[in-house]
Amino acid sequence: MSKFKYAAGLWAIGGTADRFLTSGYVENPPGLIELTKKAATVTDLKGIEVINTQLDGVDVGEYKKLLDDLGLTAISVLANTFGLRKYKLGALTHTDPKIRQEAIDQGKKSLDLAKELGADNINLWLGTDGYDYSFQINYEKHLDMLLEAIREIAEYAKKMDLKVALEYKLREPRNFMTIGAVGKALYMSMQAGDNVGIILDFGHSLMARENPAESVFWLAREKRLFGVHVNDAYGDWDDDLNTGVVHFHQTLEFLYALDVTNYSGWVSLDIFPYRLDGLKAASLCIEYMKEMEEILERLDYEELKKAQLTLDAGNTQPIIKRAIFGK
Amino acid sequence: MSKFKYAAGLWAIGGTADRFLTSGYVENPPGLIELTKKAATVTDLKGIEVINTQLDGVDVGEYKKLLDDLGLTAISVLANTFGLRKYKLGALTHTDPKIRQEAIDQGKKSLDLAKELGADNINLWLGTDGYDYSFQINYEKHLDMLLEAIREIAEYAKKMDLKVALEYKLREPRNFMTIGAVGKALYMSMQAGDNVGIILDFGHSLMARENPAESVFWLAREKRLFGVHVNDAYGDWDDDLNTGVVHFHQTLEFLYALDVTNYSGWVSLDIFPYRLDGLKAASLCIEYMKEMEEILERLDYEELKKAQLTLDAGNTQPIIKRAIFGK
Amino acid sequence: MSKFKYAAGLWAIGGTADRFLTSGYVENPPGLIELTKKAATVTDLKGIEVINTQLDGVDVGEYKKLLDDLGLTAISVLANTFGLRKYKLGALTHTDPKIRQEAIDQGKKSLDLAKELGADNINLWLGTDGYDYSFQINYEKHLDMLLEAIREIAEYAKKMDLKVALEYKLREPRNFMTIGAVGKALYMSMQAGDNVGIILDFGHSLMARENPAESVFWLAREKRLFGVHVNDAYGDWDDDLNTGVVHFHQTLEFLYALDVTNYSGWVSLDIFPYRLDGLKAASLCIEYMKEMEEILERLDYEELKKAQLTLDAGNTQPIIKRAIFGK
Amino acid sequence: MSKFKYAAGLWAIGGTADRFLTSGYVENPPGLIELTKKAATVTDLKGIEVINTQLDGVDVGEYKKLLDDLGLTAISVLANTFGLRKYKLGALTHTDPKIRQEAIDQGKKSLDLAKELGADNINLWLGTDGYDYSFQINYEKHLDMLLEAIREIAEYAKKMDLKVALEYKLREPRNFMTIGAVGKALYMSMQAGDNVGIILDFGHSLMARENPAESVFWLAREKRLFGVHVNDAYGDWDDDLNTGVVHFHQTLEFLYALDVTNYSGWVSLDIFPYRLDGLKAASLCIEYMKEMEEILERLDYEELKKAQLTLDAGNTQPIIKRAIFGK
Repeated sequence: MSKFKYAAGLWAIGGTADRFLTSGYVENPPGLIELTKKAATVTDLKGIEVINTQLDGVDVGEYKKLLDDLGLTAISVLANTFGLRKYKLGALTHTDPKIRQEAIDQGKKSLDLAKELGADNINLWLGTDGYDYSFQINYEKHLDMLLEAIREIAEYAKKMDLKVALEYKLREPRNFMTIGAVGKALYMSMQAGDNVGIILDFGHSLMARENPAESVFWLAREKRLFGVHVNDAYGDWDDDLNTGVVHFHQTLEFLYALDVTNYSGWVSLDIFPYRLDGLKAASLCIEYMKEMEEILERLDYEELKKAQLTLDAGNTQPIIKRAIFGK
Repeated sequence: MSKFKYAAGLWAIGGTADRFLTSGYVENPPGLIELTKKAATVTDLKGIEVINTQLDGVDVGEYKKLLDDLGLTAISVLANTFGLRKYKLGALTHTDPKIRQEAIDQGKKSLDLAKELGADNINLWLGTDGYDYSFQINYEKHLDMLLEAIREIAEYAKKMDLKVALEYKLREPRNFMTIGAVGKALYMSMQAGDNVGIILDFGHSLMARENPAESVFWLAREKRLFGVHVNDAYGDWDDDLNTGVVHFHQTLEFLYALDVTNYSGWVSLDIFPYRLDGLKAASLCIEYMKEMEEILERLDYEELKKAQLTLDAGNTQPIIKRAIFGK
Repeated sequence: MSKFKYAAGLWAIGGTADRFLTSGYVENPPGLIELTKKAATVTDLKGIEVINTQLDGVDVGEYKKLLDDLGLTAISVLANTFGLRKYKLGALTHTDPKIRQEAIDQGKKSLDLAKELGADNINLWLGTDGYDYSFQINYEKHLDMLLEAIREIAEYAKKMDLKVALEYKLREPRNFMTIGAVGKALYMSMQAGDNVGIILDFGHSLMARENPAESVFWLAREKRLFGVHVNDAYGDWDDDLNTGVVHFHQTLEFLYALDVTNYSGWVSLDIFPYRLDGLKAASLCIEYMKEMEEILERLDYEELKKAQLTLDAGNTQPIIKRAIFGK
Repeated sequence: MSKFKYAAGLWAIGGTADRFLTSGYVENPPGLIELTKKAATVTDLKGIEVINTQLDGVDVGEYKKLLDDLGLTAISVLANTFGLRKYKLGALTHTDPKIRQEAIDQGKKSLDLAKELGADNINLWLGTDGYDYSFQINYEKHLDMLLEAIREIAEYAKKMDLKVALEYKLREPRNFMTIGAVGKALYMSMQAGDNVGIILDFGHSLMARENPAESVFWLAREKRLFGVHVNDAYGDWDDDLNTGVVHFHQTLEFLYALDVTNYSGWVSLDIFPYRLDGLKAASLCIEYMKEMEEILERLDYEELKKAQLTLDAGNTQPIIKRAIFGK
C-alpha cells in the first residue's frame, strides 16, 4: 500500500505548447472528458486537478458523476488568471477595478466549482500578478491590492467551508511574480486568513533556490501546507520534468518530509511532458515515486534522526546510501 | 550618425505567445506584410530578419520589392526547425533519415530565400537539436550527425556565395541544446567550413554565464562573428527583454566590443515584448542603444586601453563612470 | 546634500581572503584602528559597522572616543557566529547546548558592545545556521531552536532599548542557510519580537532571485527594514562587487525604494574588494551612488507613479531613461 | 573489480578554509606527508594529485619513494597560479612580463615535478586568468597572451613527453575565468598543441550549465579528455560536495560516458569537505561511485542504445530506472 495518494493536473498531461510551437506538441490534444478518462487508466492515480476554464461549457454535475464513476477525486480547482489576455498586466492586482474584480470573481467561481466537484480548496497560482522591469509598478499599492483580493476570496471560501491555496512561483510568465518564494507565501497566507495556505511545487521551490524538503517544514509548522506538486527541473527554470530523474535525493527527502510532518494531502503531478506521451510520463513518475516509497520503507527514521543530532553529514549519508541501495 | 546599423527580427515584435497563453498576447497579430510596414516606421530601423516559414504562400519577389520600397534590408533568414511539430525530437540530428533530410532541406530552402531577398546568410538556431534528460540520446552519433548536416548546408551555401550562421543557445525549448555556448559554437563552425560563423545573442550569452563582450572577442579572433542579437535578461533565462535596462554596463561593453573589433554587421533586436506594444518596445531599444553610442563617443578609448594594461578595475571604472555620467 | 547617509562594514574594505588564497589579498592587512582611521578619509562615509570579535582586546571606551573624534558613527555590531571553528556545524541551532549558549551569548555581548558604541542594533547574519546536504538536519527542531535563540537575544536587547537585525542570505558559507530570503526573514522577525527586523543586502537579495527594490517594500510594510547593505553581483553568488556596475537599474530602483518608503537608516557598503584597493573601491561606490542620487533628483516621482498605474513598462521606461540620461 | 581507477586531490581532503573562516575548518591541518599516508588508507584510492607548491621544501625523490611504498600513483601536478598573491590580477595573462614569466615557469617547474613523480601531465587550472568587471581588461591581448603562454608550456612538456591539461572553470576566484566552459577549453587546447587536453571537473561543468556526460563526448571526439574530477554541487557554484548526492542521474551518466568512450584515465576526487572529516568524505564518495558501477553492471548498454535511437525519453527512462532499482 502506498504512503501517498497520487493525483495529476489535467492541464499538464494532455497537450502542451511553448512559445516557439504555439500550436502544441500534440496534433489533436484531447478534450477534458477524454483526458479525464485517460488519466483514470494510470495505475495509482486517484485524484485530478482542473483549471476552472477547462469546465467552460461542461455540465459540472455530469462531470462530477464521471469522476465518481472513474474513481477519481477532484482535489483542487485552479483559478485561471494566467491564460486570459485581459489579465496580462495583472489579475488580483490590476489597477483597472473592473479587470481586478473579474479576477476576484474568477476565484469565487472556482470556489463554486470546487464545491460542486467535492474539492476542498482552490489554487491561486497568480501567474500574472507581478512585473517584468524595474520601476514598472508601485509595489506598495500592489502588495495592498494583492492581500485584499486574497482576503476577499478567502472570506467567500470560508462561508463555503473551503480553503484557498497560494501556489508560489518565482517567475514565468512574469519575470518577477510577487508570491515568489516560500517565506513570502507563508507571510501572505498568515495575513490573509486561517483558511489560506500554500501549494508547494517542487520545481518552483528549486527555482527559488530552496530545498523543497525544508520548505515543507516551514509550512508545516504553521499548518499551512495544503497541497504539493511534484516534478523535477534543472534548477534555473520551471522545467516540469518527470519526477526524480534530476534531483533524486532532494525528491526522496521531500517525500520523507511529507511523511514525518504527517502530510495527509495529495501528491499531485505537475509535469509538462512536451515531447513525451503524457500518460506514459505520468505512469513513469508514479512508478518512480513508488520506488522511492520503498527506499523510505528501508530507511530507519529513528536511526536517521539520531544521526541528524550530530549535525554531521558524514553520519547521515551512510544511512541514506544504505536505504537507497538496499544494503 | 550611428556607429551601428539597427535591425529587428520580425518574429519578435509582432505577436508573441507563451505556454500559458498560447493564443498570444495580441488579439489579431499582424501578418508579415503589415508587420514589415510597421517595422519600417521605427526610427533608425533599417534591417529585418525573417523566418523562412513566414514567407510560406508569399510572393518572394514582391516581398523583396516591398522591402526595397520601404528602405529595409533583409539581413538574414532564420531556418524554422523549432516551430514545426515533426522536429520536436530533433531536426539536423533526427535519427529518422527522412525527417533529418527535411530539416537539412529547410536550411537549403532558407538559403534560396536569402539569395532572393538579398541577405548574405541564414541563421541556424537549432532549437530542437538537443535533449531533455540524462541518457536520452547517443551523444556520439548526435554530434556526428549535427556536424555533417551543417556541412551539407554550408556547402550548398558556398556555391551560392552565402554564409551560414549558428546562433548558439544554452536551452529552451530543449533542456539542453547542443550548440549551447560560444566555445562550442566556435568549435563547430571551424569544423564545418570557412563560410560558417556565429550569431551572438546577448541574452543567450548571459544564459551560458558568459560576458557577451568577451564572447565577441573569442569570435572576432577567428573572424566568425556574422551577426548579433540584442536584448536583455535577468540571466537565468532567455527573457528577451528590452535592451540595456538590466545589464547596463555589459550592454555598453558589448557595443564597445563590436566597435573595437570593427564589426561591420547589423545590430539586430531579438526581443519578445509579450506585454508591451512591439513597435514601442523596438523604438525604446534603439533609442537606448543610441544613448549608449553617445556614451561611447564620450569614452576615451586610448585612455581606457592604457588603464586596462594595469588590470586593475580601480583604474578602469572611473573612466567608464565619467563617460556614462558625462563628467 | 545627500539623500542618504553612507557607511561601510570594516570587515570588508580592509583585507580579504578566499579559499584559494587564505593568507589574504593584502600582505599586511591593517588592524582595526588603522582601518577605522582610513575609513574616515573616504568622502561622505560617516558610519561604520564592526564585527564584535574585531574588538577583542580593544578598549571599547577608547575606540568609541576615536570614532567620535573621527566623526564616525557605529551603526551596527555584527555578532561573529560564522568565523569561529566551533560554530562550523551551527551556532544558534547547534544541538550541543553549550555551543549554542555560547552563540547566544555572542549575540548578547554584541548588544553590550553596541550599547557602548552607541549603535542602535546588532546584526545577526547567521552564516552557519543551515546545512549542506539533504537529510543532514532535523528541520523541525532546527527551526524551533533558531526562533527561540533569536527571541532570547531580542529580549535581552529590548531591556537595553536596542534592536536585533537579521541579515538574510541564501547560501555561503553553508549550502543552505535557513534565513535565506526576504519572506523567511520577515516571518522570523515577526515571530521573534517587535524589536526584531531585517538588514537587506542587495547582493543577497539578487542571490535569492529577488528584485531588491521590491524586497524593500515587503519589509517596509511591516516596518522591519532596519538596515541595508549595498554592493553588486552577477546574480548567482554573493560577489560583493562595487555598487552599480552590474545591475544599474536595479540599484537605482533600490535607492528609489528607500527614498519613497522614507527609509531613514544608513546605506552601508558590504563589498569584498579582493583585488582592489579597499578605500579606492569604497570611494568609487559612494561616488557612484551619488551619481544615482542625481538621477533621482531628475526623476519626477509623481509622473512615474502615474505611469506605474498603467502597469505598462512602455510608459515607465521613457521616464527612467530621461532621468538617467538627463534629457 | 572496479571499472575505474580512483584518485584524489591532496589539496582537498586535508584541510579547507573559506573567506569567513580563513584559519581553516581543521585546527591543525595535516602536512603533505601525513596527508599522503592518510589518503593511502582509503579503500580503492590509488592515485593522488598534488599542487606544485605543496612540494616546496620537500625532497621529491623521497616523496616519490613514499608514494611507491604506499602503492599510490601521482596522476597529475597542479601548477599553483591561483594561491599566490602576486598572481592576483593574472598569471599567464599578466601584463607585467616578469610576473607572467614567473607563472609560465611555474608551469614548467610543475612539469619537472611531474616527471620526477611519474605523472604524465600537469594541470593548468588558471584561477586568476580572467577578470571581474566589464571593461577591466583588453580581451584581445588577453586571449593572445593566454594562448601563447599555454603553447610555451606545452612545448616544454612535449620535449619531456608530458601532457598539459586545462581544467576549465566558469568562475571563482575571478568573476569571469577565461577558460570557462568545455567549448572554450576544447578550442584553446586545439590551438595550443596536440599534447594539450582537458581535465573535466563535474561541478565546473554544472556551473557552466553543461551536462557533464555530454561534455565527455565533446572532448572524446577530439581525444582531448586527459582527466576528470568528480564531486557534486547544487549548480550555481563550485560547491565541491560529496559525489552523487545531488545529481544522481547525471553522475551515473557521467560514469557511463567515461565507460563508453573508453576513458582509461583516473577518476579523481576534487571535493572540499569543509565541515566533514576529509577521509570519511573521500571514502563515502568512492563507495557511492562503486554503487553506481554496480548500476552500470546491471544496465544493458545495447538495449539503452537502441532506445536512444527513438530519441524518446519515455523509452530510455524505464531502462535506467530498472538498472538503478535492480528490478
